[in-house]
Amino acid sequence: MKFCPNCGASVARRVPPGDSLPRDVCDACGSVHYQNPRLVVGTVPEWEGKLLLCRRAIEPRYGFWTLPAGFMENDETAGEAALRETAEEAGAHVELGSAYSMISVPRVNQVHLFYRARLQDLEFKPGVESLDVALFEEAGIPWKEIAFRTVGLTLKHWFADRARGAYGFHAEDIK
Amino acid sequence: MKFCPNCGASVARRVPPGDSLPRDVCDACGSVHYQNPRLVVGTVPEWEGKLLLCRRAIEPRYGFWTLPAGFMENDETAGEAALRETAEEAGAHVELGSAYSMISVPRVNQVHLFYRARLQDLEFKPGVESLDVALFEEAGIPWKEIAFRTVGLTLKHWFADRARGAYGFHAEDIK
Repeated sequence: MKFCPNCGASVARRVPPGDSLPRDVCDACGSVHYQNPRLVVGTVPEWEGKLLLCRRAIEPRYGFWTLPAGFMENDETAGEAALRETAEEAGAHVELGSAYSMISVPRVNQVHLFYRARLQDLEFKPGVESLDVALFEEAGIPWKEIAFRTVGLTLKHWFADRARGAYGFHAEDIK
Repeated sequence: MKFCPNCGASVARRVPPGDSLPRDVCDACGSVHYQNPRLVVGTVPEWEGKLLLCRRAIEPRYGFWTLPAGFMENDETAGEAALRETAEEAGAHVELGSAYSMISVPRVNQVHLFYRARLQDLEFKPGVESLDVALFEEAGIPWKEIAFRTVGLTLKHWFADRARGAYGFHAEDIK
């Protein structure tokens, strides 16, 4: 940030009084501008033991496979964000299950959150941010072409949980 | 947002091409500025069946009781945020347990996340944002003076889970 979004004056990067971290401070209007991590929310959509993945039509990781997910928007709940992204990226209709994995990625100031989900039909189709959408059995998962580590971790948890017959909640970090 | 943080020109609020929601768009430099929900992260610190609460020294809800929590910062994990806020607001040393509650509050564009935690000693003391810090048995919880609904819900889950002898993960919304 170079200019104050409130008044347009130049901002300075320094620790405000009473704070402990540097912020973008505007000396013209006195406002302090905080930057915080963003939530990326999605689903693990299942159909008869297969999982739905999307092949990315955008950078980063163009051409790689991912679970449907994207940035949570203002004015929605995390569950609403998960349903919206699943519809936008995969054209998929799902019934949302429980929150399943939550992975902090401080390198990019993100927290990734995935819900279990059950596909309601096979009418899915790629949205504008996907090249392809397909169902994969465990043996067919393109592990070397998975777009993000949070997606790979979530898929591994899911198959391990299925094998042991119990789905937990998985919170972890990628540092 | 009135001015572009990147170039200082006036921004317009409209739906950019390929998007579905209005954003702050700068026609001078072409940048699009997104606003997303923020994570508020904290702990449920326990000592021999009692829970630690902080009495707020700041608005909103000055004088009301809360669990130690605050905005997650860039460059940290959710667990690190929980530990930092617990130290800052209550001067408390805790061992972090599992993620415990996650509550979307779309009205204020926040997601509140609490971890279970075990106090390591009784050396806690109010930080600059707290008037007081104290341990409460279930019968002594000041239910009518709890600062936020997310805190009240989390406390109710905790005591109900203790009564049934199993602590789950609770994801819900306040709409």
